[in-house]
Order: sequence, then structure tokens, then C-alpha cells
Amino acid sequence: MQPVAINLGIQLRVLATSANESAAQVIPDAFIGDYKNLNDLRTFAQNCDVITFDHEHVPLEALKQLVAEGVNVQPNPDALQFAQDKLMMRAALTEAGIPCPQWAHISTSDELNDFALQVGWPLVLKSARGGYDGKGVWLVEDESEALAVMTDINAHGQEVLAEECVNFTQEIAAQVARNPSGKSVTYCVVKSTQTYGICHEVIAPCPDISEATSQAAQAIAEKISALIDVTGMLAVELFDTGSEVLVNELAMRPHNSGHWSMDGATTSQFENHLRAVMNWPLGATDLTAPHTVMVNLLGASETDLFRTTLSAIRQHPSAKVHLYGKAVKRGRKIGHVNASGDNLESLKKLAWQVANQITGAEDEQ
Amino acid sequence: MQPVAINLGIQLRVLATSANESAAQVIPDAFIGDYKNLNDLRTFAQNCDVITFDHEHVPLEALKQLVAEGVNVQPNPDALQFAQDKLMMRAALTEAGIPCPQWAHISTSDELNDFALQVGWPLVLKSARGGYDGKGVWLVEDESEALAVMTDINAHGQEVLAEECVNFTQEIAAQVARNPSGKSVTYCVVKSTQTYGICHEVIAPCPDISEATSQAAQAIAEKISALIDVTGMLAVELFDTGSEVLVNELAMRPHNSGHWSMDGATTSQFENHLRAVMNWPLGATDLTAPHTVMVNLLGASETDLFRTTLSAIRQHPSAKVHLYGKAVKRGRKIGHVNASGDNLESLKKLAWQVANQITGAEDEQ
Repeated sequence: MQPVAINLGIQLRVLATSANESAAQVIPDAFIGDYKNLNDLRTFAQNCDVITFDHEHVPLEALKQLVAEGVNVQPNPDALQFAQDKLMMRAALTEAGIPCPQWAHISTSDELNDFALQVGWPLVLKSARGGYDGKGVWLVEDESEALAVMTDINAHGQEVLAEECVNFTQEIAAQVARNPSGKSVTYCVVKSTQTYGICHEVIAPCPDISEATSQAAQAIAEKISALIDVTGMLAVELFDTGSEVLVNELAMRPHNSGHWSMDGATTSQFENHLRAVMNWPLGATDLTAPHTVMVNLLGASETDLFRTTLSAIRQHPSAKVHLYGKAVKRGRKIGHVNASGDNLESLKKLAWQVANQITGAEDEQ
Repeated sequence: MQPVAINLGIQLRVLATSANESAAQVIPDAFIGDYKNLNDLRTFAQNCDVITFDHEHVPLEALKQLVAEGVNVQPNPDALQFAQDKLMMRAALTEAGIPCPQWAHISTSDELNDFALQVGWPLVLKSARGGYDGKGVWLVEDESEALAVMTDINAHGQEVLAEECVNFTQEIAAQVARNPSGKSVTYCVVKSTQTYGICHEVIAPCPDISEATSQAAQAIAEKISALIDVTGMLAVELFDTGSEVLVNELAMRPHNSGHWSMDGATTSQFENHLRAVMNWPLGATDLTAPHTVMVNLLGASETDLFRTTLSAIRQHPSAKVHLYGKAVKRGRKIGHVNASGDNLESLKKLAWQVANQITGAEDEQ
């Protein structure tokens, strides 16, 4: 968010775990502290006009306490809880008639088997309040596998959300920016492709979608944002089954599915997130090129990206490379590449070539 | 430069006179010191891979000393001197056959009158090594006026450059980014409009120019950059007389005539300046929209821009506002607005409306 904050004359303060964190590297007013500690949060919040987030892990109780003390927290904890607790999210969306995969809160083997009977194997199991040890979603093939995962999730003090394994034709995402006055703007629907469960490629706008499906996805995102009073960016990840769209996950912050907007939209998701949480008027979300392809840089064989980045941008002077200042670890998101223009197939080729060249993934193929 | 440095993973250190300076507000590694003091420059330069500039006023002798001590200074003092000393610039360009207004180095009233006889009154007088007390260029109508200015310039320890007053049809600018390996990229020629000698509006690309004139201007900029071995951005401001183009001024840094590129080109002048001085491959300079209009925010009646900025962006969600974190003073450049799109006339209207609304200039018209 710092590049757009600089352009808009907004002064950021960041709460970081260490001075090496990406945001702390580029924001002069970095406060080193623990986001789980109420006193650190309180000290950090002093003199801030608005507090917002780049992840969902700040404890809800601490945020509620800050709000009680008069701190302006955006999105408000009452909204943020739906991004923190997937059971609460499923219940609220289902009650509002928003299409979701079939789901159940399961605690016992009877509840598991009832649900499996209803939707069939395999099932998707999720820890309700987010992942631990790098895991949060499990695809389980049968009862014994499912029971083992349930025991593990419960052992980490969490509840289990079971969902049908949706037979989707593609994964798409819709993003809305909404401010506390209730004004909102919607981005085009994008197509997202995962590798081993990690977002790897996003195409904006989604190339293989009917106008009706696209509008349905946008309408769902707009409905959710108003329903739970989201402020800032809301990303809704959806399954497109060919006949309907079903909500998969929510994020209430700038999200990987919107990184394309840094080079492909009049106002990026980062700018609109800041404008929204400050209750400023929102910026136009028009495309600045017919197509933008985003490919994540996932850590691979190269540990020093300097040489490979120079080599890649030498060959591809129109690629927009974004690096996060993170140490390279295998599979970690360490940056992304955007390519914008008229010809989708060339842009895909370009973005993947640059990404693979930078990370060294090309040598592994 | 900090927004693009963040995206490229480049760590900036800034030498600033105070922590309130624009760049020091947004760069964590701000070194407070005096850019005229060799020891401050030396301390600042430690651990920097490359030193570059956002103004031309660092003393040449100090820079030469840094280079002698092994510091990588880009552009090199041997190039930068042509941006610091207008007499030296005129001599070098004239010797290379690059078209300039008629000019003379004048020290005496005889030399003044000889030159006036040659080109006619009025004349333009310039202090050779840049301005003082906010002045650097004088339009003088007759001998007595000219002698008074010459005395003043000499009293400030400077030489006098006299130039014919060019009867131009428009002012244009051409920009080149060039790296130490000699690779360069050229931006489209732009039209620049001044108010009381201050750049106020830039249109990219220049709408009223023949392809031949545009190419001539670009060729001049490319020739100059190679001739004097410029690295980083070179901006060449030119007079278009309708029959020829004549070089007016040079700048060797990101320049006001290139601010449009932040929202109108694949690679902004700030990104290409950084890439060039680091000897990285340069980015594509293609337009991302048919037209971009840049209007400077010049300090006017509004001293607190918060309310007016919100009001302006509420009415114009597609305008890109850039604020510099500077206190408002009348006539001071405190930001700029870019508007990009298809219809030049609407973009001009939009950019001027937003700018006047933010600064309060609209209330004065």
C-alpha cells in the first residue's frame, strides 16, 4: 500500500513483527510489535486516524477492545469476523440466500457420515478459524481419513467445517471496494488458476465467462459487502460450475486476485483499499488495457533473484515486475509479474516466461 | 522514485536537508545532511551502490572527489556539468551542430550591444550556473535593463549567457533514458505549456506536431544523451518555431515534462531513471492510453488540500492525483494531476478542473 500512499500524500504507520518484514522495509514509521498483544496494538494505534490490515490474524477480541476505546478500525471487527471464521461466514451467507457449496459444521463421526451421505466422497474439510502449520484445507477420500483430520483440527482448538467437493469448471474472483458511507465500486471478474492450492495465475477480465455469470459473481460480491458491512477491499473467490457460481472464500484486504489492478486498472486495489478505509471517495475501476495477466513469483531454484530479474526484464521490457523484499523459500509468494495489452495469448506467454525465468522454475520443467 | 523502487525491490537512501522533505517522509533510510558538504556526501555515499539526483545543485567538485574515491555517481559529473552550466551546454551543443537559439557569453556592454545588433531586442539573459533568489532567466527590453541584470548576475559570482528571444509556436520536450552501457529508450514528444515561466500543463503525446518534427526532437535528445554520455533520464526542452526545433534547456533527472508517464506509459520516467542509473535493462516507453494530460498543482488560495482533494476525486473518480507532501506556498509545485484516455479535449477539461479545485485556483478565476 505504500506506493499509492506516497502518491496520495497519506502517511502510513505499520505494525510489523520485525524490521525485516516487507512493509517495514519501505515505511519510515514502522512500529515493531506483536499483533496478538493488546498493549502493542494500543500503542501502535495512537495517533492513527484509521487502522486496517494486510492479513486476517489480528485477534478479534483485541480489535473489539480497540473499537471500545475509540479506535477507528476498518473493516470493523463485526465484519472482519466473517473473514476469520469460515463457519460464521457460511451461516451468514446461507441465511442471506447467497449460493455456497453444501456445508456442515461437524463434530462427530455421525455428523460426518450424515454429511458424506448427502454430498458424497471426497469431502473438503477446513479448520474454521484459518490454517495452522501451513495447512487449513484438506481433501479427504473416506471416513478414516476424515476422522484423522477432524481429530487434528480439534486438537488445535478449532471447529471443523465440511464442504462438498465442488466439480467446478474454473475458479473466479470478484472484488469490491466499499467505504464506511456505503459507497462501493466493483472490479471486473477475474479467472484464477491454482498450483497445488496456491494462486499462480490471474487473468483480468476472466476470458471464458458469460456476461450473465460475470454479473452474477459481481452481484454476489456486492451483496456480501453490504450484508456484512465490509469496508476496504473485499475479495470473493468463487467456483464457476458452468451452471452456477458458488462462494468459496472471502478476504477483506487487498488480495492476490487483485494484483493485476496495479498495472491494469485506473485505480489499483491498494489505492481503493486505502481510499475506502479512510472513507474517501473511491477511484474508477476501469481497465487500462483489454487484458492483464498476473503470474505469481513462487520461490523455486533461484535464491538470488538479482541476476535472473535483470535477464528477464532485458528480454521483456514491457513486463511489470513486482518484488516483495522477501527471502526466497520454495513455493513462497515472493513477487508477481503483470503483463497488459491486446493479445491475451502473448501476454500469458510473456508473464509466464518472465516469472519462470526470475524464479528459476523454467530450469525445472 | 520511492514507489517504483518499492515495486522493483530497490532500497533507496536519501540525502535530505531535513526530515520534513518530501523524499525523507517516505524513505526509511533518510540521511539528514548538507548536499554541499563533501563529508556529508561521503558519509551518505557509504554502502550505496549508485548515487543519483533529483536536482542539479550538488557541487561538481564534490562529485568529482566522490568519483575519485570510487563512488559510482550517475550521471557522472562529466555529464552533469552540462546541466549545471548553461554556457558549457550551449558551447558543446553548438560545436556538435545541434540547433540552439543564437547565444553569446557576454561580460561587457560592448559584447551585449554586438549581440543585440545581431539578434535584436528583447533578449533573454540567464545566469550560467542556475538561478538564485528564485530567478535565473530575465527577458530584457533594452540596454539599460540588460546592464542592470548583468551587474546583478555578476554580483552573484556568475557568468551571463545571452540568448535571442525565440519566436516559438509551442514548447515541446523529448525525454531519453540511457544507461552506462549506452542502451537507451526514448519517450514520445510532449507539449508543455507554461504560466509565468512555470510549467503548468503537459500533453503526451504532443497533439500539434508533424511526425518529422517529432522525430527531429527525439533525434536531438538521443544525440545529446550520447554526446555528453548522460545516464538516467535526460529531458530536453525545445522551442518549436514551426520551421525548426531549437534546444532550450536540459535536465538530467526525472523532470516535470515526464510526470505524465506515471499514469500514461508502460514504464514511468522514475522507474527508467532508477533502472538506467543502476545499469539495468530499460523498460518499454509505450503509451498505455492514446492521450495523457498532466496539470501541475501550483499553490493558490487553499492551504489545506484535504477537503478540496476529496471533493475533486469524488467528482472525478478517474483522475490520478499525486501529492508531494509539501507545504502550500503560492505558485509552488505541490503535486500534479494526470488524466489518461481517448478524448483529449475531455481529458484537458478533467485535469484542469481537478487541479483548480484542489488548489483553489478556480475561486480566483
